Amino acid sequence: MDHDFASALANIVGPDHVRTAPGELSVYARDATPLFHQPPGLVVFPCTTSEVSRILSLASDRGVPVVPRGAGSNLCAATVPVRGGVVLSMTRMTHIVEISTDEMLARVQPGVTTARLADCAEARGLLYAPDPSSRVTATVGGNIATCAGGLRGLKYGVTRNYVLGLEAVLPTGEVIRTGGRLWKDVAGYDLTRLLTGSEGTLAVITEATVALLPKPAETLTGVAYFESLEAASHAVGQIIANGIVPATLEFLDKKCIGVVDDYTGLGLRREAGAMLLFGDDGPAEVVTGNMSRMRRICTEAGAIEVTVAPDVAQSEALLAARRCSLPALSRLGSLTILEDVSVPRPRLAEMVSRIDEIADRFDIRIATFGHAGDGNLHPTCVLDPDDGDAVERAHKAFAEIFRTAIRLDGTITGEHGVGAVKLPFLGERLGQEQVELLRRIKRAFDPAGILNPGKLGS
Amino acid sequence: MDHDFASALANIVGPDHVRTAPGELSVYARDATPLFHQPPGLVVFPCTTSEVSRILSLASDRGVPVVPRGAGSNLCAATVPVRGGVVLSMTRMTHIVEISTDEMLARVQPGVTTARLADCAEARGLLYAPDPSSRVTATVGGNIATCAGGLRGLKYGVTRNYVLGLEAVLPTGEVIRTGGRLWKDVAGYDLTRLLTGSEGTLAVITEATVALLPKPAETLTGVAYFESLEAASHAVGQIIANGIVPATLEFLDKKCIGVVDDYTGLGLRREAGAMLLFGDDGPAEVVTGNMSRMRRICTEAGAIEVTVAPDVAQSEALLAARRCSLPALSRLGSLTILEDVSVPRPRLAEMVSRIDEIADRFDIRIATFGHAGDGNLHPTCVLDPDDGDAVERAHKAFAEIFRTAIRLDGTITGEHGVGAVKLPFLGERLGQEQVELLRRIKRAFDPAGILNPGKLGS
Ligand SMILES: Cc1cc2nc3c(=O)[nH]c(=O)nc-3n(C[C@H](O)[C@H](O)[C@H](O)COP(=O)(O)OP(=O)(O)OC[C@H]3O[C@@H](n4cnc5c(N)ncnc54)[C@H](O)[C@@H]3O)c2cc1C
Ligand SMILES: Cc1cc2nc3c(=O)[nH]c(=O)nc-3n(C[C@H](O)[C@H](O)[C@H](O)COP(=O)(O)OP(=O)(O)OC[C@H]3O[C@@H](n4cnc5c(N)ncnc54)[C@H](O)[C@@H]3O)c2cc1C
Repeated sequence: MDHDFASALANIVGPDHVRTAPGELSVYARDATPLFHQPPGLVVFPCTTSEVSRILSLASDRGVPVVPRGAGSNLCAATVPVRGGVVLSMTRMTHIVEISTDEMLARVQPGVTTARLADCAEARGLLYAPDPSSRVTATVGGNIATCAGGLRGLKYGVTRNYVLGLEAVLPTGEVIRTGGRLWKDVAGYDLTRLLTGSEGTLAVITEATVALLPKPAETLTGVAYFESLEAASHAVGQIIANGIVPATLEFLDKKCIGVVDDYTGLGLRREAGAMLLFGDDGPAEVVTGNMSRMRRICTEAGAIEVTVAPDVAQSEALLAARRCSLPALSRLGSLTILEDVSVPRPRLAEMVSRIDEIADRFDIRIATFGHAGDGNLHPTCVLDPDDGDAVERAHKAFAEIFRTAIRLDGTITGEHGVGAVKLPFLGERLGQEQVELLRRIKRAFDPAGILNPGKLGS
Repeated sequence: MDHDFASALANIVGPDHVRTAPGELSVYARDATPLFHQPPGLVVFPCTTSEVSRILSLASDRGVPVVPRGAGSNLCAATVPVRGGVVLSMTRMTHIVEISTDEMLARVQPGVTTARLADCAEARGLLYAPDPSSRVTATVGGNIATCAGGLRGLKYGVTRNYVLGLEAVLPTGEVIRTGGRLWKDVAGYDLTRLLTGSEGTLAVITEATVALLPKPAETLTGVAYFESLEAASHAVGQIIANGIVPATLEFLDKKCIGVVDDYTGLGLRREAGAMLLFGDDGPAEVVTGNMSRMRRICTEAGAIEVTVAPDVAQSEALLAARRCSLPALSRLGSLTILEDVSVPRPRLAEMVSRIDEIADRFDIRIATFGHAGDGNLHPTCVLDPDDGDAVERAHKAFAEIFRTAIRLDGTITGEHGVGAVKLPFLGERLGQEQVELLRRIKRAFDPAGILNPGKLGS
């Protein structure tokens, strides 16, 4: 990276906030995605919107790539600087500007973690609904830029539904403010939602206004074991058919149950074909009612065993089995590829059996868990990274899995994003005309093509 | 309109579906917006996506403006063909393609009315949540293109929250499919939401997949009268502060109460300063509980009188007062200008008193009603269209009202849209940089600038 450019940046943010040492750069060569890495030329840590604006103007003038980065917890290589250039770390912008109980909203800088925002809201009796499992490290800016999901998508929707307004800096340096503090505002194209999920390719988010909800009085979780995923999936369908839209409907397939049980020693029913976690929140009487209806529905759908946790603490313990699926699987091999496809809810069991068939055919190990309520599955492959042939087979298997999801009216990514990982498959999902349109939209924001090149919009 | 072009269109849709008679054209010169009119050169009625595509390709080639039109019920001159050209009426595309109870979604053509979709959903025990007051005539395509709101915005959100996927034709004729049947899908920029609220300027929607909800078991409504709008507004704040997010929180100011009472003879309390309608839906026990808590909160906030309707029929009767505000006001003069600003909820009373002050200063008559829960107000001016000076004063007054809303952190349109009416004010709301960005986005979709020119993105 050219020395002049580094000192120009140091003039903007102060010399302490520009890092160029190889040891530090190597940290920013990766994110949570395995197998992708490329060190940036430097990392810069702005702390105000105006600093971000000056950095971007300079980079646009000089044609230097800039990759916005929150916690780097994404799973699609969205923050790997595949074309080099600058990593723009938002981790110094961590101010919770305001929480308004009157207006049920929070205004935060992008580097605030999801968990901190949720905790601050909770302390005032409010709920920040989006809850990706990475909530302790992931940032609100990263959540918005990926439109993060989580364990409550069916009832509460995803991050998009909670973003009221954004302050953002265009790659050319202009600061725009979209939306605001309003529940209803249709003045202009919906840039708030367009930036949500734009994966740091259209603008850098420097402040967000997000909607909060009243904190639910009660939250309960139950677990049901079934002979097969088909049976579990049928139970999910029956829950919906009975007019219940619960907060949580998560599943683990047979392989996950075994692995999680080995890891946790929770004494799960390893002989079961599938485990379904069902939970709800809201007024106590509604939650209790819904939980016993769901228990009955699961039993009628042939559950081997159904248990409802009597309180929040025991509900949390049940959810632990779901939350530790990834660490439990990771222990089995040093390379864990966690994927993220979605299909219409009724096709969940069909998709999992296709995944199993594909894994067998390519002779790799894939276990699947995910969000049964939204049809969002996380097939996870564990392998030895030194076995180049197995890695190759895994890539081929995932390519087939993506294509299968598309054929079942599904998608190549439900919540993790496109990043560098899924870009080669985007045309198959959207069609070439739509990919061209995305590129034209990208150019409308970023004529010099400096913002996170090689990702969405490229 | 050039004869060749008309016959080329007739070749596409059949001669019966191209209209050029002046009498017919004059109908399409207007929509529900007063004072704006401009006849198109012709009106064309396609009935398939492929016809729409061929019409748009042809228009792009020849540089002819095309204005998509649903029921023409918008209030911002969004369908007035201000640059002439073709009106593309979507009213023949009225097929409900599918309602899936399993997946809780409907797939419809754009010309289906909101009420028909809602009724079909209801017949299967499902709720289509968006409910603009124009639901009997307005189309789903128009609702999506305007991101229509309604009486349930605070709890249920607006149309945007229910659009899962779209089929749309670009002005250059390509057919794209965005989103789909999935609750979670982040493959690509969020074109589904970008098209929602794009007011027929980016693409023509030819099919929509929308999310449904289980139909609530109970719906109840109550009415509270207050000395002043400040007191009513305080009650609204207290309802929220108590963790209740009700389905309905509507208000009428003193002037509306009088006018509606004259019109309906319902025996409203005309001496009151404000009337608040509060309502909720959901499981019976929750609704009953929330209604009695809201009744108590209103009383504690100083309500003169509070009544809760004991059943759905009487709830509907109470809502009638709100729903007939517009017809009641319209009777007072032959020109009724209904406006649509939003402010943060706690600033509602302040905004209404500013409106009253502005109306007095410009010596015009404005009464205000609206959605207290979302801070969305409809100041409505009634005048004699032949009194040119009064019309002029009304325009000046509304310009001040828009600016006042902006100063109070609000917006120039909460739900009705920008159209030709608000375009001159968009820069003041969004800033010139953002308006330029909207223009670049518009060009990314519509290089020839044929789709609804003179509106959003121009
Ligand atoms: C264990 C684990 C569990 C996870 N669980 C979930 C889950 O349940 N649901 C889910 O959706 N995801 C999940 N993820 C994925 C990931 O955590 C989310 O995508 C998260 O939103 C990323 O936030 P981040 O701050 O780490 O962003 P990063 O990874 O740093 O960046 C993600 C993207 O956002 C962009 N970006 C970041 N900040 C900004 C900004 N201020 N302005 C503009 N662009 C910006 C980046 O350029 C990049 O494209 C999980 C990841 C892990 C490792
Ligand atoms: C009495 C009354 C009450 C109302 N109440 C409400 C209310 O409570 N909430 C609210 O939000 N609005 C309300 N409105 C405004 C209006 O009804 C809504 O904006 C409605 O969504 C418009 O639907 P439409 O079919 O009439 O669309 P139109 O008026 O025909 O068109 C509106 C816009 O959508 C575009 N459009 C239409 N169809 C398509 C398509 N298929 N593809 C692309 N673009 C298209 C048009 O070009 C135009 O820009 C009300 C209007 C009236 C007259």
